[in-house]
Parts: sequence; C-alpha cells; structure tokens
Amino acid sequence: MVLLRREIGDVLRDARQRQGRTLREVSSAARVSLGYLSEVERGQKEASSELLSSICGALDVPMSIVLREVTERVALSEGTDLQPLSVPDTVPVDLADGMASGGLVGAGVP
Amino acid sequence: MVLLRREIGDVLRDARQRQGRTLREVSSAARVSLGYLSEVERGQKEASSELLSSICGALDVPMSIVLREVTERVALSEGTDLQPLSVPDTVPVDLADGMASGGLVGAGVP
Repeated sequence: MVLLRREIGDVLRDARQRQGRTLREVSSAARVSLGYLSEVERGQKEASSELLSSICGALDVPMSIVLREVTERVALSEGTDLQPLSVPDTVPVDLADGMASGGLVGAGVP
Repeated sequence: MVLLRREIGDVLRDARQRQGRTLREVSSAARVSLGYLSEVERGQKEASSELLSSICGALDVPMSIVLREVTERVALSEGTDLQPLSVPDTVPVDLADGMASGGLVGAGVP
C-alpha cells in the first residue's frame, strides 16, 4: 500500500537537506517540535494540514510544489501513467463530454 | 491558509458524486464509517494515509490521480504557477546543476 505520509515525509526531508538546513532550524521556523518534524519526515506521523502548511512555509516552498513531487512519487509507486487530462479536438463528442464531466472516473486506469 | 484536508475532501466528494454513488456505498466499500467519510469529504477530519488509500480503492481511482487534482487546486489557491521542472538543453551548466539537485528550492516562487 502506498502511504501518503511516507511520500510527504521523503519530499519534505529532501527539500530541507537540499537547503542544507537542520531539523532544528526548520522545526523552529515552522514552530513545531523537532521530534514532531523528525517523525513526519520519517513517515511515522501524519502531518496535520495546518502543520504541513507551516512546514512548507518554513522551507519557503509552496505546498503545491511539494504535492506535485509527492504525486509523481505516488504515481511511480502505483505504476500510474499521469497523462494530461486535456481533451483533444479529435475526440468524439460523447467521449469528450464524459472526460470533461468526469475527469477522475477511470483516469489513469488502463 | 490552504488546508490540504479540505482540498482532498472536495476531490474525493467530486469523484464519488461523478460516479453517482452514495456515502453509504463508498464508506462500506472502503470499510470506513459513513460518518468518518462524511467528515473527510467536508474537510473536517484528516484522513490517515491508510484510510485515504482505502477510500481511493473504493472509488477505483489511483491515489496519484486524486493527488494530482488536489495539487492543481492547491496551486490555484496559492497562486503558484506549476511549470514543468524539466531542464532545457540551453540552460547554463551552473543553473542546470542547481535545478537538477534542488528542484524544490525556490521552484514556483517568483
């Protein structure tokens, strides 16, 4: 089973280490305890939405950038091919309608 | 503040409603309580990674597809422009090195 908290933790740790910052520095900037941040990075604790936002702020990385990397990692683990959902001009009308109204339904499923 | 659980809840509810399924049907398939799923969909409760995986399974939607939609919604709320991170051939070597090793650092920040 792909666990979201593990992927989030890996991405947050990568971002911090790329910046050459310590757990202490980032936890202080995010106003979370060092132990909490460490557990989040190791995928041992679910980050609440508020604290995830705070950690992204402390890293000066938009949450959507973190989530995009998380999404790509999850897709790789799942073996999901993330193709753009845009509807080509040549798609028949009934199929295009289905795609436009139900982008999530069956998307990425062979 | 953009809250991840609200965006996840909205995307899960949209997916369920597009499939014309009830809270009862999906909660039963995901083996979570109806009340829990309802709270997750309304962004009132954080879904644990295990239960998020279970709900995605019940909806027959890969988690990465849900996360991609969540990412796009978060980017819109943040005003983050999610450009591809690929490194063009013409980028100077030192800049390309920085991008390759630090894709998250400052990405999306003007």
